[in-house]
Amino acid sequence: MAEKKKTTRKKAKVSGPRLKIIPLGGLEQIGMNITAFEYEDSIIVVDCGLAFPEDDMFGIDSVIPDVTYLQDNIDKVKGFVITHGHEDHIGALPYILQKVNVPVYGTKLTIALIENKLTEHKMMDTTKRVVVSFGQTINLGRFRVEFIKTNHSIVDAAALAIYSPVGVVVHTGDFKVDYTPVYGDAIDLQRFAELGRNGVLALMCDSTNAERPGYTQSEKTVGVTIDRIFAEHKDTRIIIATFASNVDRVQQIINSSYKYGRKVAVEGRSMVNIIAAASAIGCLNVPKNTLIEEDELRNYPPEKTTIITTGSQGESMAALTRMAEDQHRKVKIGPGDTIIFSSHPIPGNEKSVTNVINKLLMKGADVIFQDVHVSGHPCQEELKLIYSLVQPKYAIPVHGEYRHLIAQSKVAAALGIPKEDIFILHSGNVLELNQDVAEVTGQVPVGAILVDGLGVGDVGNTVLRDRQHLAEDGIVIVTFAMERGTDYLAAGPEIESRGFVYMKEADSLMKEADLVVQEALADCLDHGQDDPAKLKNSVRSALSDFFWKKTKRRPMILPMLMEI
Amino acid sequence: MAEKKKTTRKKAKVSGPRLKIIPLGGLEQIGMNITAFEYEDSIIVVDCGLAFPEDDMFGIDSVIPDVTYLQDNIDKVKGFVITHGHEDHIGALPYILQKVNVPVYGTKLTIALIENKLTEHKMMDTTKRVVVSFGQTINLGRFRVEFIKTNHSIVDAAALAIYSPVGVVVHTGDFKVDYTPVYGDAIDLQRFAELGRNGVLALMCDSTNAERPGYTQSEKTVGVTIDRIFAEHKDTRIIIATFASNVDRVQQIINSSYKYGRKVAVEGRSMVNIIAAASAIGCLNVPKNTLIEEDELRNYPPEKTTIITTGSQGESMAALTRMAEDQHRKVKIGPGDTIIFSSHPIPGNEKSVTNVINKLLMKGADVIFQDVHVSGHPCQEELKLIYSLVQPKYAIPVHGEYRHLIAQSKVAAALGIPKEDIFILHSGNVLELNQDVAEVTGQVPVGAILVDGLGVGDVGNTVLRDRQHLAEDGIVIVTFAMERGTDYLAAGPEIESRGFVYMKEADSLMKEADLVVQEALADCLDHGQDDPAKLKNSVRSALSDFFWKKTKRRPMILPMLMEI
Repeated sequence: MAEKKKTTRKKAKVSGPRLKIIPLGGLEQIGMNITAFEYEDSIIVVDCGLAFPEDDMFGIDSVIPDVTYLQDNIDKVKGFVITHGHEDHIGALPYILQKVNVPVYGTKLTIALIENKLTEHKMMDTTKRVVVSFGQTINLGRFRVEFIKTNHSIVDAAALAIYSPVGVVVHTGDFKVDYTPVYGDAIDLQRFAELGRNGVLALMCDSTNAERPGYTQSEKTVGVTIDRIFAEHKDTRIIIATFASNVDRVQQIINSSYKYGRKVAVEGRSMVNIIAAASAIGCLNVPKNTLIEEDELRNYPPEKTTIITTGSQGESMAALTRMAEDQHRKVKIGPGDTIIFSSHPIPGNEKSVTNVINKLLMKGADVIFQDVHVSGHPCQEELKLIYSLVQPKYAIPVHGEYRHLIAQSKVAAALGIPKEDIFILHSGNVLELNQDVAEVTGQVPVGAILVDGLGVGDVGNTVLRDRQHLAEDGIVIVTFAMERGTDYLAAGPEIESRGFVYMKEADSLMKEADLVVQEALADCLDHGQDDPAKLKNSVRSALSDFFWKKTKRRPMILPMLMEI
Repeated sequence: MAEKKKTTRKKAKVSGPRLKIIPLGGLEQIGMNITAFEYEDSIIVVDCGLAFPEDDMFGIDSVIPDVTYLQDNIDKVKGFVITHGHEDHIGALPYILQKVNVPVYGTKLTIALIENKLTEHKMMDTTKRVVVSFGQTINLGRFRVEFIKTNHSIVDAAALAIYSPVGVVVHTGDFKVDYTPVYGDAIDLQRFAELGRNGVLALMCDSTNAERPGYTQSEKTVGVTIDRIFAEHKDTRIIIATFASNVDRVQQIINSSYKYGRKVAVEGRSMVNIIAAASAIGCLNVPKNTLIEEDELRNYPPEKTTIITTGSQGESMAALTRMAEDQHRKVKIGPGDTIIFSSHPIPGNEKSVTNVINKLLMKGADVIFQDVHVSGHPCQEELKLIYSLVQPKYAIPVHGEYRHLIAQSKVAAALGIPKEDIFILHSGNVLELNQDVAEVTGQVPVGAILVDGLGVGDVGNTVLRDRQHLAEDGIVIVTFAMERGTDYLAAGPEIESRGFVYMKEADSLMKEADLVVQEALADCLDHGQDDPAKLKNSVRSALSDFFWKKTKRRPMILPMLMEI
């Protein structure tokens, strides 16, 4: 893109004070949505998400952003401003707040979901939370931030108008344009227009669906589909999987269940939690006597029940997956079940989802998995609409992989925004901007910190590389004991392996390996080399060559020398 | 499905001799297409494919079928009849022929690709190959097999009419209906109709796309798209990735290159091999002076060159991936490149493909990845056409996951085939059938044999489980030496870990672990327990508890006791 050229071209220009925009997550760390806005002595941080581990991050539970930059500037940081309650926008808060303890601002459901997390981490007493209404503006140092109603696959999603002394930045958060949302108002397009009329410095807009032409359908269209499926399956139990956080979807499932006289049970911890949180603040309305406990299911004919469950992504521990694998304590799947996936597989989950579908079908269930979902992100026509209302000076596509950011920048360029005013920021880039100039002027430290069990950051590249090596070819451990100060091999070598070959079948291989080790040791000692490190190296390299020749595999070789 | 009911209902019926159909791969081992047809003293085997490892098969290169059943009945086996040259239909041949050495029958390109494999495995002298033409019939014991022209994403694909004394089985192989194929004739629909008129016992039909309504587009439509892209990108180098085996696609890329005056270089070993094989037998026609060597690329202006490459699935070692990662010796990607993915990601490869796309875009290249591909499998309308021509008594959907077989069986049922005459076979099922009866009567041994390096079958579930455990949490090795016959701890404990925590940061954790081991040992010895197995168990369980408490992780613990 154009930022590099620009840096050179405009560097010489003199201009007044500037706003800094610094993505601390983003492009190089997809999922970790966290962006710092800095003006003089004030920093605000938009969102604080976690990422799920990549396939090659063996054993890792989640990934959180490195916030060294915020820690180094802790006196400036005024607060976290959260756009909505999805994990990739709030998930890292419990970890980051331990290092950067500032107030958290968000709409009702967003704060409720954050509070669920804080409770789990026993951090309710130490964290200040502020619920903000749509239309409300909060003051944070040199910034003012206005929350604007949008629509998304979770209710209470907000766009932000971030007022700085050098201009307004509109950050859409994740959004779609839904003229007929299920709960609450449609996106406040008028406000976007007003802001645009008054002049917007920069637009930071959701790129997830920027490769797709057309419009994203209204959430209500899914309700119609669900209702039709309910009408056509009056004689079977209905089990329906969707994203726990999609409260509107859950609402529509409950509506159809109620309409057709079904009781509703809820399966999966995250689903139960979010339904509780959403009901408590009134953005989910469940008719009386509709929700029942799992245990009460047996009191009703199956065709008068609906089970709403987690597991729409084929997650290995989720309720639907356990049902498919006959591992669920209460729910057994059979030919009398209609199972609906009200979801699309997230890229990377296709195979897991398909495995679950196959298993459910093998139990004789009817499985419906096509066209019972709509996206929560804007397609190209919606992007054009927002750009046309806001008419920003600079475009900063956000939220998506590089291919998606590129796709949005093409849309922006087609609408007449000059290429040099479109910025694709890499994690840690410092974009400085005001009405005269915008340029990437530097880079702050960023990174991915791995969470594994209780450990935060104690698994790094070395450990991951070892896990990968172990996964690929296993490990061979060679133990031997030398008498201290002599050349005498007191015991061993003993060879054990794990994850390399099935030992019982590799008896002769291991006997040969034993000889290889003995030869390597004898060779060293004959040449007067009795330094432990040298002995170990020699054993390692002899064994490694031997196994490669015999098996074309390279197990990790770990010589353990005891001196006695 | 209905087979179970049927088994019960019809078991009593007396009927004459029966044909047996036994999938030795298939449903439970997707990718391994291998089906035995048995009648009295004769067995023929249709296809002999390998599968690529699932995500949890760490370190495995490929998976081949267990053919114990064929080995146990080796005297009956007359030959392998191969429908086409894709890996999931021919890939296991070099391994299986070592156990079941019978002649291999196939069309020209199919045999050429098999010969590439046999050459690699030095098996050309020991394997009998027979090239069969479309329309030709071969005699194999009690069977006759006729090869029928079809279309697919590889040329020379065949359907089979398998004549047995109790009736004809039509096996479609993988196919599509392409009225305007690039090379050779369209699918021989007249022959399907003729066979149907004369009476077909069973149809075994490709299910891959059975969930998709409509028709699969002709391969020629991709040629039109490619030509348009070439016309619109006369000023850039074009790099185009596709499946090596799709000779028709390669032909169309070469045609457009020639038309626009471009020289063509070919990248990736499998692409080079298949182009050579296809050219040699005349199913690929390259105009003179069009193909050039990689090294000659520099002699032409970039906009006068095309590079056809492997890597359309984001495979880690493929040429395009190496280009994207700046690891390719000869080809550097830049803003002057147009890169085309003439492919769809195979389920499971979405993330790898997207990673490559992102990296190419970051180098400034223009990347085109939408709508430059058509499938090689039939959609629902094509299935209806084949069923309507063949009008089989029994339907046996093949090739696909359970969800796809179910989808085809719904199509078959909608066309009037009674549900009890539709069979979804599991791997190893023995389906016995004739004009009076069809029922699953038994099960033969089947299984997946893992190939890892030179090892075939030496990695089994134990080794895989260990690899998974090692990948997840790593390993901790505790070495200590006891004086034989005494309770004296002569050396150690010494603790080493790999893939668990970064040792330098876990200094205090490891010091505590050392104490835990010493305590566990002391405790045993104090109670007079000096049995090595008991000592090791006690150390293992004490350390495991300790690490779980401290880290919520469960590394593999391997105590190594030396007696001196």
